[in-house]
Amino acid sequence: MNMMNLRGSLDVAKRAVDRCLMLAKLSEEEHQTTRTFLTPPMHEAHRLVRGWMEDAGMTVTVDAIGNLRGLLQGARSNAPLLLMGSHLDTVPGAGAFDGVLGVMLGLSLVETLDDQTRPEFGIEIIAFSEEEGVRFGVPFLGSKALTGLLDPTILQRLDARGITVTQAIRDFGLDPGDLKDAEFRSKALGYIEFHIEQGPVLDSLNLPVGVVEAIAGQTRLEVRFEGKTNHAGTTPMHLRRDALPAASEWIIEVEREATATPGLVATVGWIAAKPGAANVIPGEVRASLDVRHQDDSIRSSSVRRILDCARAIAERRRLQFKWEVRQEQAAVSCDSALTETMARSVETAGYPVHRMVSGAGHDAMVMASRMPVAMLFVRSPAGISHHSDESVRIEDVASSVDVGRQFLRHLE
Amino acid sequence: MNMMNLRGSLDVAKRAVDRCLMLAKLSEEEHQTTRTFLTPPMHEAHRLVRGWMEDAGMTVTVDAIGNLRGLLQGARSNAPLLLMGSHLDTVPGAGAFDGVLGVMLGLSLVETLDDQTRPEFGIEIIAFSEEEGVRFGVPFLGSKALTGLLDPTILQRLDARGITVTQAIRDFGLDPGDLKDAEFRSKALGYIEFHIEQGPVLDSLNLPVGVVEAIAGQTRLEVRFEGKTNHAGTTPMHLRRDALPAASEWIIEVEREATATPGLVATVGWIAAKPGAANVIPGEVRASLDVRHQDDSIRSSSVRRILDCARAIAERRRLQFKWEVRQEQAAVSCDSALTETMARSVETAGYPVHRMVSGAGHDAMVMASRMPVAMLFVRSPAGISHHSDESVRIEDVASSVDVGRQFLRHLE
Repeated sequence: MNMMNLRGSLDVAKRAVDRCLMLAKLSEEEHQTTRTFLTPPMHEAHRLVRGWMEDAGMTVTVDAIGNLRGLLQGARSNAPLLLMGSHLDTVPGAGAFDGVLGVMLGLSLVETLDDQTRPEFGIEIIAFSEEEGVRFGVPFLGSKALTGLLDPTILQRLDARGITVTQAIRDFGLDPGDLKDAEFRSKALGYIEFHIEQGPVLDSLNLPVGVVEAIAGQTRLEVRFEGKTNHAGTTPMHLRRDALPAASEWIIEVEREATATPGLVATVGWIAAKPGAANVIPGEVRASLDVRHQDDSIRSSSVRRILDCARAIAERRRLQFKWEVRQEQAAVSCDSALTETMARSVETAGYPVHRMVSGAGHDAMVMASRMPVAMLFVRSPAGISHHSDESVRIEDVASSVDVGRQFLRHLE
Repeated sequence: MNMMNLRGSLDVAKRAVDRCLMLAKLSEEEHQTTRTFLTPPMHEAHRLVRGWMEDAGMTVTVDAIGNLRGLLQGARSNAPLLLMGSHLDTVPGAGAFDGVLGVMLGLSLVETLDDQTRPEFGIEIIAFSEEEGVRFGVPFLGSKALTGLLDPTILQRLDARGITVTQAIRDFGLDPGDLKDAEFRSKALGYIEFHIEQGPVLDSLNLPVGVVEAIAGQTRLEVRFEGKTNHAGTTPMHLRRDALPAASEWIIEVEREATATPGLVATVGWIAAKPGAANVIPGEVRASLDVRHQDDSIRSSSVRRILDCARAIAERRRLQFKWEVRQEQAAVSCDSALTETMARSVETAGYPVHRMVSGAGHDAMVMASRMPVAMLFVRSPAGISHHSDESVRIEDVASSVDVGRQFLRHLE
């Protein structure tokens, strides 16, 4: 990598970051970034991104689920396509980079191509309309429509204002009848996604980028310890059946299981003690459990041990223990060949290759059902994401531009 | 106790219980009993109780805080008074007996007096207007006014609809200017209160009544563990500063401290993990702590150990620990002479004497600041209180009538 390239990549990175910050101003709410599926600010986002795509010589369309798609034809009309992108929707009170950076980096890579570097294959940049699952409580609407995996019953789901997905599509000026046409049917080399890490690992290792090998599988449960509500002042300790110390013992065991199992993360994110008054012994505690690992069998074993442990605690304390699965999602491996190309690109760009697992879901996870995928993580300073403090270092974005350029060269 | 007396006491008990059930229908809400300080149903309660008091030959007044007071003059005009009673207000969704039973039993004892058994001293039955602290968030308004301890700043407090205490008094047809006159200034033998136990101890020992020696002192705290909010999927275990396992360790220690300290009860009744989403590591946990013991120094030592323990857990886990005192209330001893009279009355009525500590506050606690007090607990089946399932056994109420009759005889 010579100084000329580095300088060029920094300029490209600055422009990508500026565009992310510009898009962050398009929001449903004042003073913070909230841009959910097919809401009015998404129209504005499309207007901007479409302009940049067209300026880069791309043919731009919006499919029926609202994905904005920019096509750069390959050297021949039947040349296969490389898909690149991420999502334009955000969580409430979001930062500027989650999803958006991946779209901007794909676009930037197209912009840096010249007659010498333009590959034989075509490139389609996809700005997915929905990934976060905020508006309708179901994530990945964009990538599901593109892979033909959108469950038709989802179309009848209601948002907080009672509007169906179908109606939201119509309100955005699109035709739900065209949803079938959103499905990608061309010949694809694969899908690559650049995304901020949304975690602290690269920052803790002081690395700009990381190669994602897999997206962790996930089990999400709701658990319930049932004891007996009583007066906190009048019930001696030996006559209590307090659900909260039971849940507390279990939370410690959840942490112990995860710490003892390499690669496992397990989290109790919310807890509610009922009735929930300072002077009343909790008769019931409900809590969430989120367990993730790249190996589904390890995850299943850990979930089983965690549940066994809860049952044992409840039995010893004369309580009831109940649980329900809220989500169960298998791990997804990235394509090994495409991922090796990505790793080689990191190496030739001059950076250490760090292979890692994504603990969060991404569009690439859905895309993997239909084509080879690879992902590159960009360092998240302090691991902050889903928050207005979310940030990126320009130098790291420049590094990912370098890697992307190498990737296009290596893929050729 | 001959069979005649036992039969008589059962009838008296049945009438007292029937009256409690009748009063339970006077509520601010349909289908459940909610009768807070100076609300319209309290007018109806006063109308009923006043009638019963007048039928029993008592002179009835309502003081400016809304206490309904029935006076049975003693043999001489300057004879001292024995005060008996409890409160007529309830928690939301209350049972029929908490407080109300004590008023009805006082009244019943007056009704059972005849020329032979009527004592030399006078009797004042007090139906306190406020003990639970529901409407204005401050308990004991009735007994505080009667003992002259009502903090005048409380008069400006607002209820949920923005009405001050002063206005509530006016709306009830009373004059806040007369509050000084609510203070009890006559010569008193003492105050005795019959109350359901609101706990499971008598039921677990299969005893009808218990003699209360003291009302436990209480410390109420709000504690806070502060860590770092992060993504539950992308943050490896070793990079977490999760506030919930820290709080969980501490809750176990709270339980351990209470179990290891005879007579101590300690409760974490509510807990909140923030932000409180299944896929987010809690960056903050707040929780309540309620600690009670009849010996203030034991309570203080335990609170200190519990806080030391929280600090140690927080330090080991690189978290912050903060806490605030929300309530600090010294233990109150019942009068030893009056309590011995009560114990002797239990004995002569033919029941085992079980001495116990009240873990809940009662009007007697406030009254103790001005005169000797004694309390008798009536068994609470299954320890259930502050709930529509709250109940009493007629036989136990009859036992307390027996004890009350003996008490009036022994006090003479």
